Amino acid sequence: MSAKLILGTEIREEILEEITAEVAEIKKKHGMVPGLVTILVGESPASVSYVTLKIKTAHRVGFHEVQDNQPADISEKDLLALIDKYNKDDSIHGILVQLPLPKHIDDKKVLNAIDPDKDVDGFHPVNVGRLMIGGDEVKFPPCTPAGIQEMIVRAGVETSGAEVVVVGRSNIVGKPIANMMVQKGKGANSTVTIVHTRTRDLAAHCKRADILIVAAGVPGLVKPEWIKPGACVIDVGVNRVGEKPSAKDPSKMVAVLRGDVDFDAAKEIAGYITPVPGGVGPMTITMLMHNTLKSLKFKLGIA
Amino acid sequence: MSAKLILGTEIREEILEEITAEVAEIKKKHGMVPGLVTILVGESPASVSYVTLKIKTAHRVGFHEVQDNQPADISEKDLLALIDKYNKDDSIHGILVQLPLPKHIDDKKVLNAIDPDKDVDGFHPVNVGRLMIGGDEVKFPPCTPAGIQEMIVRAGVETSGAEVVVVGRSNIVGKPIANMMVQKGKGANSTVTIVHTRTRDLAAHCKRADILIVAAGVPGLVKPEWIKPGACVIDVGVNRVGEKPSAKDPSKMVAVLRGDVDFDAAKEIAGYITPVPGGVGPMTITMLMHNTLKSLKFKLGIA
Repeated sequence: MSAKLILGTEIREEILEEITAEVAEIKKKHGMVPGLVTILVGESPASVSYVTLKIKTAHRVGFHEVQDNQPADISEKDLLALIDKYNKDDSIHGILVQLPLPKHIDDKKVLNAIDPDKDVDGFHPVNVGRLMIGGDEVKFPPCTPAGIQEMIVRAGVETSGAEVVVVGRSNIVGKPIANMMVQKGKGANSTVTIVHTRTRDLAAHCKRADILIVAAGVPGLVKPEWIKPGACVIDVGVNRVGEKPSAKDPSKMVAVLRGDVDFDAAKEIAGYITPVPGGVGPMTITMLMHNTLKSLKFKLGIA
Repeated sequence: MSAKLILGTEIREEILEEITAEVAEIKKKHGMVPGLVTILVGESPASVSYVTLKIKTAHRVGFHEVQDNQPADISEKDLLALIDKYNKDDSIHGILVQLPLPKHIDDKKVLNAIDPDKDVDGFHPVNVGRLMIGGDEVKFPPCTPAGIQEMIVRAGVETSGAEVVVVGRSNIVGKPIANMMVQKGKGANSTVTIVHTRTRDLAAHCKRADILIVAAGVPGLVKPEWIKPGACVIDVGVNRVGEKPSAKDPSKMVAVLRGDVDFDAAKEIAGYITPVPGGVGPMTITMLMHNTLKSLKFKLGIA
C-alpha cells in the first residue's frame, strides 16, 4: 500500500485562490479589503525571510499590506504605542509582530497588547480561551493547527468518532489542535489523546490512532510499526538534520529537512500522509491570510 | 478489594482551615482580607441556596463579603454598571454573578464584563486561555476542575505519566480538567484522553485509565467492568434520580442523588473513588474561596 499524499503546496494554492476571489467580491460589495500590518523589529535574516513571504502572499490575495520595519533598539514603550496605533486603525484587520523580539522587549506584553479582534495569529489569551470554549466563540484559531484541520478535511478524512492522537503538547501546535479536534462540529468530534515526553507507552497510543498528528520536534521519532494501517499521518516536524548543495545553485548549501515521522517507510503503511517539506509548512501563512480575511468579515458582520 | 474513599467533605475542611489561617496571616501583615461580592439577580430558590452557601463559606474563612441582591427586572445596562463598580472597587478581589440570569440579560456579555483579574470562577475567555497556555500564565482555574486536581493530589495519587481518561467535554469540567492534567508540573504531566458521545469505544478507553474522571451527567454510565483494578475514579456526576423523605425531617422530600459511576460495584475494583454526594461536590465552593484568596495574593505580589 502507498499512502495518498496530502500536499500543503497544493492545498495552499486552492485556498489562496478562494481567498483572492472572496477579497475581490467583498471589495466590490463593501468597498473594503482586508488590511494586514507586519511589524518587524531589527533585521534578523530568518525574520526578514518570513515577513517577506507573508507580505508577498498578502499582496497576491489582494490585501492592503503595511510593512512596518523598526530598528532593533526601538523601546518597548514605542513598540506598544505602535501597536496601539494599529489597534485604532480601521483599515487594519490583522496585526502581526514577527518573533523573536530583541531581549530588552517583553514578548508577552507586546503580543497581549494587540487587540484580540486583530490578533490573526490567535495567540492572545482571549483567542486561546475562545478556541477552547469552541463553537461560535472561536475567532482566530492559531494558523498551524488551523492548517492541519483544513488539510484533514480537504483530504476527505472522517474526523467524527475518529481516534486522534496528538504527539506533543506545545502551545503552538499540540494543545490547540487537540482542543480543536475534540469540539463538536465539522472537521472535529474526534476522541483525542495528547501524548508527550512523560507518556509511558508512546508506541501503543500511536498504533491506535486513525489520525496521528506529530508535533514533537524529534526527527524520525515515529517508527513505521507505530502506524495503524490506513491511518492519516500529519507530520508537523521540520527538523534541520544537515546541509546539501542547493538544486538551483549547487555552490550554495541549503538545509536538509526531516519530519518527526520516518516518511519513506510510513507512507507504505499509512492511508494518508503529509511530506516534509511541502506538507503542513505551507499551510501556516495560508491560514494567516484566511484569519485576516475572517477578521474583516467579522467587522462587516458577514463572517 | 475495597477502594479508599476520597471525601470532598473532609478535604474541604482541610482546605478551608488552611485558607482561614492564611487570611489571618495576610490580614496581620498587610492589613487586608480577600473581598468577594456575590451578585444575585432575582430570587430563584436554587440560586438563593447556592449564594447563601458561598456567603456562609466566605464568612467562615474571614473574607470581606458583599451580598448584592438585585431585582429580576434589573436592566442589562444597570447590571453591567454594577459590575464595573466592583471592577473598580479595591476592596473586592472576586466577583461572582450567580447564574442563570433572567432571559432579557445576555449571560455572556455580563460574565465577559468582569475584570479577568477578579474572575474567580475562571470562565472569562482570558482565564480559559491562560489555563490552556499553562505554567505561570494560569490565574484562576475553574473551581470544579481545580477541586478535582486537588483531590487527586491530596489522595497521593501519582499523576505524572498516568493515563487519564476524561469522560465528557463540557466547558465547566471536561475540557478544563483535560487541559490541566496534560500540563507540565505538579498534579499533572499525565497522558490525557477526552472521550464523549461520539467516541466509538467508551469502555475500552475507560479500562485503560489510571485516573478516570467522569463528567457526563448520565447516571450509572460507567460500569464496574470498565474500571481498571486499582484506578482512581473521580465521579463528577450529580444526577437527581428520585426523591426520598429527609433524614432530618421525614415529612419533607429531598432529592436522591446518583453519580455517573455505579459506585457500589465500582468501589470493589477501584483503588480510590469519590462518592456522590460528598465527593467532588463540596470542592467547588472551596476552590472558589481558594481563587479569591489567590486574587488578593496576586494583587499583593505574594502569589
